[in-house]
Amino acid sequence: MNRKLYALCGADRSRPFSPHVWKTALSLAHKGLDYETLPVGFTEIPTIENGATKMVPLLRDGDTLISDSFDIAVYLEKTYPDRPSLFGGPGGQAMARFIESWSQLTLHTALVKVVVLDIHDRLAPVDQAYFRSSREARFGTTLEAVVEKNAQAELAAFAARLEPIRATLKRQPFIGGETPLFSDYILFGPLQWARITSPMAILAAGDPVTDWFERCLDLYDGIGRSVTAA
Amino acid sequence: MNRKLYALCGADRSRPFSPHVWKTALSLAHKGLDYETLPVGFTEIPTIENGATKMVPLLRDGDTLISDSFDIAVYLEKTYPDRPSLFGGPGGQAMARFIESWSQLTLHTALVKVVVLDIHDRLAPVDQAYFRSSREARFGTTLEAVVEKNAQAELAAFAARLEPIRATLKRQPFIGGETPLFSDYILFGPLQWARITSPMAILAAGDPVTDWFERCLDLYDGIGRSVTAA
Repeated sequence: MNRKLYALCGADRSRPFSPHVWKTALSLAHKGLDYETLPVGFTEIPTIENGATKMVPLLRDGDTLISDSFDIAVYLEKTYPDRPSLFGGPGGQAMARFIESWSQLTLHTALVKVVVLDIHDRLAPVDQAYFRSSREARFGTTLEAVVEKNAQAELAAFAARLEPIRATLKRQPFIGGETPLFSDYILFGPLQWARITSPMAILAAGDPVTDWFERCLDLYDGIGRSVTAA
Repeated sequence: MNRKLYALCGADRSRPFSPHVWKTALSLAHKGLDYETLPVGFTEIPTIENGATKMVPLLRDGDTLISDSFDIAVYLEKTYPDRPSLFGGPGGQAMARFIESWSQLTLHTALVKVVVLDIHDRLAPVDQAYFRSSREARFGTTLEAVVEKNAQAELAAFAARLEPIRATLKRQPFIGGETPLFSDYILFGPLQWARITSPMAILAAGDPVTDWFERCLDLYDGIGRSVTAA
């Protein structure tokens, strides 16, 4: 296979969990492009492809190496223009940047405080030390304290954070309109990350956002469901 | 003139202030379409065009009457496809709904608590009674209490609310990309509403969002500046 996606995994190499890698997995499926998933642990990332990247996703497409889920989506859009569009035009590509910014600031920042210890516990031993020290430096406290202090409050407030998604879904089945676009995969990524790494219930039954998330899990022969919930 | 935009005004009929009408004013300018602005007070709205609308903007374009700033943008895009696009494709049209939802939930809800009394004070007497009673019913308290209780806190927290815009502007000069799209006018609307109705400083000097707002004020021969700041 000439197309390879390097995907972050824990001790179980069959359970890629990075939100950003999931954005790329759905982007490739959206374009109908086959690929091989190569699992990597956190501490392996600097060694892949001769040190090509510090972060995943990293995509090898023939002779091209490209990282960052948004840059990969732009690359796929440009390289495979005859396949279904990921952005629905240049306006969609620009506005997806707003959705990415909002998602990082609103979803990722909340969910990390819920799932960070669950992620740690699922890593291979060699990656646990790296993960703990780098994340504890970022938070200024232990992973245990991050979760104990924040997880319940973040979970209780999480439904309110989703309100712009919920309001949009009153008008259309996907953020991209009648069918999903990269904007949907941007928002799917962090929710899938939480689904795979943590047993905590992030989304409530009956919420239109939950229904949309389930629709996203069903896409492309259910590749989102190829990894079960934690 | 066969194209008329009904625009909400206070006692000074030369100062349209509705955030949604401003979105339409910029949409028409974006398309290079001439129009006549017809000022209306709150209590006049039900009388215009034989009761065609409960809310402005209302656009008459020849034989067509259409309300709601987003619906008008979609109408203009469809009716004048050879003029510059307001959405940059179907993806941009769909994603602009997310930006509209976010703006309503994040910018409008905060700014109304800052400017609601300023708006009241600028209305014609006949509109003040309607405005006070309808808004006080909505807030469950007096306009004076809304502002006294919330305005300073909302102003202090407002810069943080703008973070998704600020993050997007690190990558591109407009939310629509290299040039503005309707997504920019969605976000411009509430900031222009505050600029025209209230002397409170909403945006800080040196903030990239302020620089973007100034660029929006400059668009189309500076029509945003055709009404001075309060």
